[in-house]
Amino acid sequence: MTALPANQFIVGVDLGGTNIVVCAMSADGSRQYGLCSEPTAAHEGADGVIARMARMVNTAVADTMREAGVSRDAFLGVGVGAPGPLDREKGIVLVAPNLNWHNIPLRDRMTELTGLAAALDNDANCATYGEWWVGAARGAKNVIGMTIGTGIGGGIILDGRLYHGSSDVAGEIGHTTIDQTGRRCGCGNYGCLEAYASGTAIAERAREALSFEQLSILPDLVNGDVSKITAATVYAAAAQSDAVAIEIVRDTARFLGTGIANLLNVFNPDCVVIAGGVTQAGEALFVPLRQEVRRRAFKPAVDACRIVPGTLPGTAGVVGAVATFIAQHTGRPPA
Amino acid sequence: MTALPANQFIVGVDLGGTNIVVCAMSADGSRQYGLCSEPTAAHEGADGVIARMARMVNTAVADTMREAGVSRDAFLGVGVGAPGPLDREKGIVLVAPNLNWHNIPLRDRMTELTGLAAALDNDANCATYGEWWVGAARGAKNVIGMTIGTGIGGGIILDGRLYHGSSDVAGEIGHTTIDQTGRRCGCGNYGCLEAYASGTAIAERAREALSFEQLSILPDLVNGDVSKITAATVYAAAAQSDAVAIEIVRDTARFLGTGIANLLNVFNPDCVVIAGGVTQAGEALFVPLRQEVRRRAFKPAVDACRIVPGTLPGTAGVVGAVATFIAQHTGRPPA
Repeated sequence: MTALPANQFIVGVDLGGTNIVVCAMSADGSRQYGLCSEPTAAHEGADGVIARMARMVNTAVADTMREAGVSRDAFLGVGVGAPGPLDREKGIVLVAPNLNWHNIPLRDRMTELTGLAAALDNDANCATYGEWWVGAARGAKNVIGMTIGTGIGGGIILDGRLYHGSSDVAGEIGHTTIDQTGRRCGCGNYGCLEAYASGTAIAERAREALSFEQLSILPDLVNGDVSKITAATVYAAAAQSDAVAIEIVRDTARFLGTGIANLLNVFNPDCVVIAGGVTQAGEALFVPLRQEVRRRAFKPAVDACRIVPGTLPGTAGVVGAVATFIAQHTGRPPA
Repeated sequence: MTALPANQFIVGVDLGGTNIVVCAMSADGSRQYGLCSEPTAAHEGADGVIARMARMVNTAVADTMREAGVSRDAFLGVGVGAPGPLDREKGIVLVAPNLNWHNIPLRDRMTELTGLAAALDNDANCATYGEWWVGAARGAKNVIGMTIGTGIGGGIILDGRLYHGSSDVAGEIGHTTIDQTGRRCGCGNYGCLEAYASGTAIAERAREALSFEQLSILPDLVNGDVSKITAATVYAAAAQSDAVAIEIVRDTARFLGTGIANLLNVFNPDCVVIAGGVTQAGEALFVPLRQEVRRRAFKPAVDACRIVPGTLPGTAGVVGAVATFIAQHTGRPPA
């Protein structure tokens, strides 16, 4: 694959429910400029949010022109990662509950406000593509990406290309059932992976455990108010050898391992990359997780696959938005 | 896509644990010649089985030459579907427990004995490709195929091409967990779809139900020897409105629906095609199965996908072996 020249540039935008992250990158992926983050302020409505995104893009362009000493002609366009579901072909955000958006033609609005060609993709897809382009999944052919935060998002790369499925909703890994009669999920279903292993679920399971187990430092870490326990509290307690927290992390590893083993047996990828707060738990999570995968998946699938934490915390999405622009613009994966 | 000419021919071979099925087809998929089936007789060893396969291929070639009035030059090659795991690139069957085969260079042996170029692929992949080429999944872009018999096999077609994964073991749908603490599976794992919904599991669940439920015609259908109950017995009893059998079919639908919903949420296919004995249960299976999928999968994924029984019972594998030869020979899907 021939890389695009290093003297061409693309701006990436990662639109999240809480923050907007923007940066510019050289088209060969080697240099990054003008990385910045601002609150999304969804209450201002779609017009307000899009105007802010455009201002941030224009600032990133100006910063890059100055720092890299290039002209505006050096910019090929802007890639945008947004919460889905999307109509990628039309560049429309169909529904984004956290933003209260419906049928917003985000791609064309970005072009109007920045004068740059634009491409749109799902945020979880972008995060996976970012890790593949310049992060932990670099060099892999078939990749499953998981982003574990409030929920569990997923992205799939097959042969270097994002796989979108027949109606652009592929990769909803968080909503695969691992226990058909299990915990209720926010989606209405029972037993989804997300209902067990998302940050929200980890905190919930910790509160449940404390209802019948007093020997734990978890309450102390939140000044006695267990409603304030988050997944990060659990990782912190586990790092201090708290038995309750360690068990919750181990169970989380087992749940994630089950979901990932399913993906290994059907996709047979060469890399699974896991991003999000849960990776703070480190080897305490990854060791039992890989063990559960080995227990459940076929050996040739296990042997073919490395399971690794992401290496671009906070920027995988914006970097992947750049990569997805390159893929849509050139018709082939970025080199 | 340009079809290969109708005056060129390929022979397909479907090597199963019980039978070998062979036929020849015109390269455009429109005509079939010399369909025949013989017992595999695995006890004769790999050399004996391969010699039989080659004889059957040579007979199919002779039959086709006579019936279609063509010369031997009209034959492009032979496609072989075999139980896996395989090394497709080298054309080797790595392990086939039912045949007691280890590292058998099946592709090259077929070429030696028939003088024809050969291609090798997994039997479940071939069955899926057959249904896509000329069967129930025709016209679809992204397809999941399931073959439900003694076990549950799977094949995946993305954009008209069989998807093999990073080490040729993709598509092991039967061994995805739907209940992490559930029934023991033959693979050693707990809660695999196959442990719930294979023919073997259906018969097992029927015997379990009869241990605490006497009001059923199932024992009568096997002259009182419940150890003789098979999945087919259950479908027959359900067709006669037997309440126990009907519940087993409904539970089977729910289990399959859970596994298929997982596939819809990650692959977002436009067709799921189900083959094997279980389709004998007809709408009694498919109605509650589609209902369970609607309950568990995302609406855009459900709306994009039809879930249908295969239309090539007994021949999907051999037809797909022809299709896989064409794909490997021409580098593109058969038209």
